[in-house]
Amino acid sequence: MKGLIVLKFSFIFLLLASQSAMGSQKRKSRHQIKPCKQFVLYYHDILYGGIGGHDPANATSAAVTNATKLGNFSFGLMVIFDDPMTKDQNLHSPVPVARAQGFYFYDMKSTASAWFAYTLLFNSSDYKGTINIMGADPIIEKTRDLSVVGGTGDFFMARGIATFQTDALEGTKYFRLKMDIKLYECY
Amino acid sequence: MKGLIVLKFSFIFLLLASQSAMGSQKRKSRHQIKPCKQFVLYYHDILYGGIGGHDPANATSAAVTNATKLGNFSFGLMVIFDDPMTKDQNLHSPVPVARAQGFYFYDMKSTASAWFAYTLLFNSSDYKGTINIMGADPIIEKTRDLSVVGGTGDFFMARGIATFQTDALEGTKYFRLKMDIKLYECY
Amino acid sequence: MKGLIVLKFSFIFLLLASQSAMGSQKRKSRHQIKPCKQFVLYYHDILYGGIGGHDPANATSAAVTNATKLGNFSFGLMVIFDDPMTKDQNLHSPVPVARAQGFYFYDMKSTASAWFAYTLLFNSSDYKGTINIMGADPIIEKTRDLSVVGGTGDFFMARGIATFQTDALEGTKYFRLKMDIKLYECY
Repeated sequence: MKGLIVLKFSFIFLLLASQSAMGSQKRKSRHQIKPCKQFVLYYHDILYGGIGGHDPANATSAAVTNATKLGNFSFGLMVIFDDPMTKDQNLHSPVPVARAQGFYFYDMKSTASAWFAYTLLFNSSDYKGTINIMGADPIIEKTRDLSVVGGTGDFFMARGIATFQTDALEGTKYFRLKMDIKLYECY
Repeated sequence: MKGLIVLKFSFIFLLLASQSAMGSQKRKSRHQIKPCKQFVLYYHDILYGGIGGHDPANATSAAVTNATKLGNFSFGLMVIFDDPMTKDQNLHSPVPVARAQGFYFYDMKSTASAWFAYTLLFNSSDYKGTINIMGADPIIEKTRDLSVVGGTGDFFMARGIATFQTDALEGTKYFRLKMDIKLYECY
Repeated sequence: MKGLIVLKFSFIFLLLASQSAMGSQKRKSRHQIKPCKQFVLYYHDILYGGIGGHDPANATSAAVTNATKLGNFSFGLMVIFDDPMTKDQNLHSPVPVARAQGFYFYDMKSTASAWFAYTLLFNSSDYKGTINIMGADPIIEKTRDLSVVGGTGDFFMARGIATFQTDALEGTKYFRLKMDIKLYECY
């Protein structure tokens, strides 16, 4: 009889504990969740050609479409890039820790705003693998959150958030983004 | 001794309960799964320029590449958009609840079919944050399912399905899609 | 009193068991994880136009932007495709099991490298639904891993890895990729 009561109690405890364990993984408020991996990298985009643009030897990106006549913020201009990612803000850091390969385009009439999809490719002693990212970059916001939608190698099946912050802007020829990569699903 | 038996029983219960809790989260047949969040929004695409197209003041999207000569369904034509999303079918609803920013292109020779990648940006009293979506839109099907691959802010780490349905089509200058957003992973 | 001790013990067991159950799902080392679904498909890209390119009747893809002058590896050239996927290497296999619809572009100055985003559309007796994939394709590597970022229908909410291997290459007019699709999250 006493055993049965204990059984009941432990069953209730079990359910509660199980739920709270589940919750810590999936249903926790986002403010309580800590990344399972996090790092900050700097993205350097060095645009080819045009007025003030770079020559082919230095450039790491190039426009592949022309801006349309919608507004004054290059709506429709698409850029394909193979940009170095460094641990600090210095473009000429001895060792880029990754490449960012993908594209962005401008997509607003009334302000500067972009949309990105790209892959971070790591091939260093620290990390081998890739992280895939996509999302909107409303440039006028101080910080912008994009989605880490997948990963491979050391980042197998990763998911998370990539927070952009404009770190430098030199007309149309160079800009630098601080990218704070926070992974919340790690295998 | 009695305690030991109870322990055994409760351990078995614990495993069963734990497994069933896990199952309900990950391994359930898709037909049993209910969205953790769902809403319907209408996407309005108002194309710039060309025959019957809109002027820059009204337009919300523009072609950035030309159609190729593969077939008669604009194969290769890519459109970049910043389109209003409304709760009802009325383009002129007082408050668009979100913007859809991204691109689509036509990609079939034998019929009208498109491919989308875009972000829903919410900035209202209801929701702040973004939802990232990609997938094929085989227009001739009554409904088409795309993937919600990530989210930020109020949609932190969301995953799910976006079901498209053509709701209006006015030549090449305007079309409206009903988008039924179903999230199956919510944090 | 005895009951209380039992309660304590069972609570501890409960936590341990719950954790180990969780671990087996999410925190396992990637080397131990087996796909919940896996299959190999061949992707056939038959490029339209240009020197050595195919006529519209045969072609399944077409360039929509021009290569830029960055390097000698078609940096900036974007191709939109609706390519057949077959179970064996034969382009003329009686039944393509899926279509691959999406785009790729070349994005390196110093070597051939591409970036893909596309949807596999299944509509056979075996499978109905879609798989959405994106990632970098550094062509010079023997195998390249891209991310399966979502799925619909029979592949509802799928996630995983798509491993590319170049299987044939005939100049700019035809290439074939072996795609090994491994899903690690199945519903």
